Amino acid sequence: MENKNIVIIGLGLLGVSLGMALNGKGYRRLGWTRNPDVRAWAVAENIVDETADDISEIIGQADITVICLPIPRIMEYLKKYAKDWKPGSVVTDIGSVKEVIVNCGEQALAPYGVNFVGSHPMAGTEKTGPEAAFPELYNSAEVFVTITAQTSPDAVEQVTAMWKSIGTSVVELGLQAHDMLVAHTSHISHILALSLTEAVLDCDEADLKLRFSGCATGFRDTSRITSSSPSMWREIIENNQPAVLATVKEFEKRWLKLIDIIENKDYDKLETEFAHGKKLRDSWIDYKNSKHNCKW
Amino acid sequence: MENKNIVIIGLGLLGVSLGMALNGKGYRRLGWTRNPDVRAWAVAENIVDETADDISEIIGQADITVICLPIPRIMEYLKKYAKDWKPGSVVTDIGSVKEVIVNCGEQALAPYGVNFVGSHPMAGTEKTGPEAAFPELYNSAEVFVTITAQTSPDAVEQVTAMWKSIGTSVVELGLQAHDMLVAHTSHISHILALSLTEAVLDCDEADLKLRFSGCATGFRDTSRITSSSPSMWREIIENNQPAVLATVKEFEKRWLKLIDIIENKDYDKLETEFAHGKKLRDSWIDYKNSKHNCKW
Repeated sequence: MENKNIVIIGLGLLGVSLGMALNGKGYRRLGWTRNPDVRAWAVAENIVDETADDISEIIGQADITVICLPIPRIMEYLKKYAKDWKPGSVVTDIGSVKEVIVNCGEQALAPYGVNFVGSHPMAGTEKTGPEAAFPELYNSAEVFVTITAQTSPDAVEQVTAMWKSIGTSVVELGLQAHDMLVAHTSHISHILALSLTEAVLDCDEADLKLRFSGCATGFRDTSRITSSSPSMWREIIENNQPAVLATVKEFEKRWLKLIDIIENKDYDKLETEFAHGKKLRDSWIDYKNSKHNCKW
Repeated sequence: MENKNIVIIGLGLLGVSLGMALNGKGYRRLGWTRNPDVRAWAVAENIVDETADDISEIIGQADITVICLPIPRIMEYLKKYAKDWKPGSVVTDIGSVKEVIVNCGEQALAPYGVNFVGSHPMAGTEKTGPEAAFPELYNSAEVFVTITAQTSPDAVEQVTAMWKSIGTSVVELGLQAHDMLVAHTSHISHILALSLTEAVLDCDEADLKLRFSGCATGFRDTSRITSSSPSMWREIIENNQPAVLATVKEFEKRWLKLIDIIENKDYDKLETEFAHGKKLRDSWIDYKNSKHNCKW
């Protein structure tokens, strides 16, 4: 990989953290983002090795391109700059949904002999922008790499090697399986956290101070992702609506069962459910700690 | 407060952390818990200054007693040992619900001229037991101290002084107002986190490994409190059922509104809701950081 050029398009939380993580991993890092000040800053701070004002000039040098932009702009750029990539090069992304993006990427790039492979690193925070980036963001993250009938095995190998070089582990998956999976493990949590935040803090002005006092570390963590980017989460749910609504049904089945137990004052059963949930979550924590040799 | 004896009954997460935090604050710390090995350990580790095998002997020396036990055992001990406290001394607790406990405490102790004041420090983790304790647990926590028609102002002053000595801030509140408040800011989150955990991880064995891979920091935080003690959370909800069910209605109103927005594909409205929730939560974070001069 010594001579490979990796181009990072979009220098926000994920793009800048990726540039930081790729430092010293044997790639030449080129970066581009809309704001020229951020481009200059990224080179000065060794986030990337090189930039240029013209995105087409950068893209033309790429062996691997990672588009680190919001979902609609990933698709916009794939269509707009399709002709600028080198034939045989590989383009991937970091979008949280994969079916719409990968369909768009394959359709846009195939005519030019450019390979598209969808990626989704399970990494992020509730913050956004280059100033929120840090080199450990991807540490112990898992990255989903999607496989379709058109996916080139060689392109998957290159994308996988890049993700593995920064300490992530890669899981291959189909498009619909991916989107249904993350609707469960990620997307629905944002609707829950938002509903909780509104139920607790969207109250009479007179009560707000007291509600503020009553919120502690439990609320802080359960609601953390409510502080995420509103436009980003709108776009994710907009582009995964059927899977999100299917997951809503899964959640409501459990929720209504628990409320029923509480209404019926069947507290032995409630304790059994709490113990069951604890066992499930603790087993996931054990998995994470043993797989990544870390402390979650 | 130099000559005051504080007795801590129950040396688990909250009791041991309280002993640690009270070190050097001018009180003589006495402690008791059922397990004699933990009693000996607590003295050896300077969690408390003194212990004894006989709980009645310890209680008889107390100016202030803090009962750090599960809710049913707080009430059991108040009734069982009522006659052992000194007349004029003050007894408080750390229970997460207040109406049942304070009613029990006042009824049990008033005949002996002992003052009961309910306390609820908004501090804890998902862990339990003395080994999970740490001296900073109460840092920047808010403590609710309950006021009833029978509450002695002098007793409230003593309890407040103790809580303030370890860096917490005290908010006075009525019993029902307290129980409704924490149903919103704390109790409902545990039902939500449990429902989420079950919706994500209670799946076919064949899917579990993939679900494990798909869960990242968002799930970790949203579901953290699912790893709490099942018996403790059963007891809290069992003793605050009407307020919890009222809060469920508040949550469901928001939840159903959001699902309706998603079903109707009104994504502009969804983004407005996300922005509204972010603003509410960020304003709470700002409040916490400015009030406690810390970084939440």
